[in-house]
Amino acid sequence: MQIAKVIGTTVSTIKDQTLGGRKLLILRQTDVDGVPYGKPYVAVDTLDAGVGDLVLTAHGSSGRMTELTKNRPIDAVIMAVVDHLEIRNQVTYRKE
Amino acid sequence: MQIAKVIGTTVSTIKDQTLGGRKLLILRQTDVDGVPYGKPYVAVDTLDAGVGDLVLTAHGSSGRMTELTKNRPIDAVIMAVVDHLEIRNQVTYRKE
Amino acid sequence: MQIAKVIGTTVSTIKDQTLGGRKLLILRQTDVDGVPYGKPYVAVDTLDAGVGDLVLTAHGSSGRMTELTKNRPIDAVIMAVVDHLEIRNQVTYRKE
Amino acid sequence: MQIAKVIGTTVSTIKDQTLGGRKLLILRQTDVDGVPYGKPYVAVDTLDAGVGDLVLTAHGSSGRMTELTKNRPIDAVIMAVVDHLEIRNQVTYRKE
Amino acid sequence: MQIAKVIGTTVSTIKDQTLGGRKLLILRQTDVDGVPYGKPYVAVDTLDAGVGDLVLTAHGSSGRMTELTKNRPIDAVIMAVVDHLEIRNQVTYRKE
Repeated sequence: MQIAKVIGTTVSTIKDQTLGGRKLLILRQTDVDGVPYGKPYVAVDTLDAGVGDLVLTAHGSSGRMTELTKNRPIDAVIMAVVDHLEIRNQVTYRKE
Repeated sequence: MQIAKVIGTTVSTIKDQTLGGRKLLILRQTDVDGVPYGKPYVAVDTLDAGVGDLVLTAHGSSGRMTELTKNRPIDAVIMAVVDHLEIRNQVTYRKE
Repeated sequence: MQIAKVIGTTVSTIKDQTLGGRKLLILRQTDVDGVPYGKPYVAVDTLDAGVGDLVLTAHGSSGRMTELTKNRPIDAVIMAVVDHLEIRNQVTYRKE
Repeated sequence: MQIAKVIGTTVSTIKDQTLGGRKLLILRQTDVDGVPYGKPYVAVDTLDAGVGDLVLTAHGSSGRMTELTKNRPIDAVIMAVVDHLEIRNQVTYRKE
Repeated sequence: MQIAKVIGTTVSTIKDQTLGGRKLLILRQTDVDGVPYGKPYVAVDTLDAGVGDLVLTAHGSSGRMTELTKNRPIDAVIMAVVDHLEIRNQVTYRKE
């Protein structure tokens, strides 16, 4: 899984018919301190995550292993919202 | 999913027999403002996307989770055409 | 799919017994003008592609979605030979 | 598989309901001497690995091939704890 | 598939119980001349490859398509030992 920050949202009228109203969020991968870097990607939100949240995303076929994403053309899903990260007994990120 | 811009088309006479007339478009990944960067890749179009459109593409086995791509040697599919992208409440891209 | 140029061949006596005489070609990814760059990789040829051809390759489990590759330890297959590529109405590559 | 060092832990209250209490560890890929580099990622621990351990992680659908991870939105799992690594007959890493 | 050189071995006492005594080798990807570069990774050996051999490795779910690796948390397998590589009719690597 990648550690990533939710930075935005996408809106699409024309999309695969199986997607329905699933929320497609924009994320950037982060380091253990929660600071984003690298290029944006899009994942389905199944946990009501919001912009600014630090989350974990599962990719590839693993992105389809939730009730909301199975059998759909989806290759990334938010599978956890991070409360805190701890590196060698030091908290490096804590949700506000 | 990747955010990508459709930049061109491919034509192939010799191809896997299961592909039929499926449209194979050339894309480049973009940032949240829709400006392309990085190397080109090819995805199947199932949504009548056109050159210049910003789209989302699903990769790997997820690229086969549409009616037009299942059970075929296809590893990327356009699964949504982007209307707009919004980063922290600011619209960074809007379809013309 | 990746746009790639066939640049060579591999010969192996010791290999997974399910591979039989399948042709394993060496490729390099190219830009839209057909000029190769990046590191070489190997894909199974199911279309009688030759050295010098520009092709499209499907990766991962999608590389197993052909008659010749299914259920085998193969993660890349040539699924189309490119006739021409067109970027914004300009032909950038044409097969000789 | 990647050679990686366990560097920390993640805590999440909101997560996919199938995850239960599975331990999600933070890792960095290492070279053959066990020195980490590159960006952090998260894998499920099924072997009671601890912070500081050098491990091997399997990715993608292979990350779901354990009793604890199957059918879950998980794309990386620790599948071995490294005792030692040997490069051309020289030990480059040994567990303390 | 990647062209890679076997550079070493790994030893693990604590590992997924389905792995048994499968050999886990350390490899580095090479160019067409067999000179390794890039970061090390680990693959299961099913062909009695040895340190110094040039091999082809299949990744992801394709790494599980052999008798020794199926249904196991394994994402890379050696599927061929290279005898020689030929680029535009010139031999660039030959096994000694």
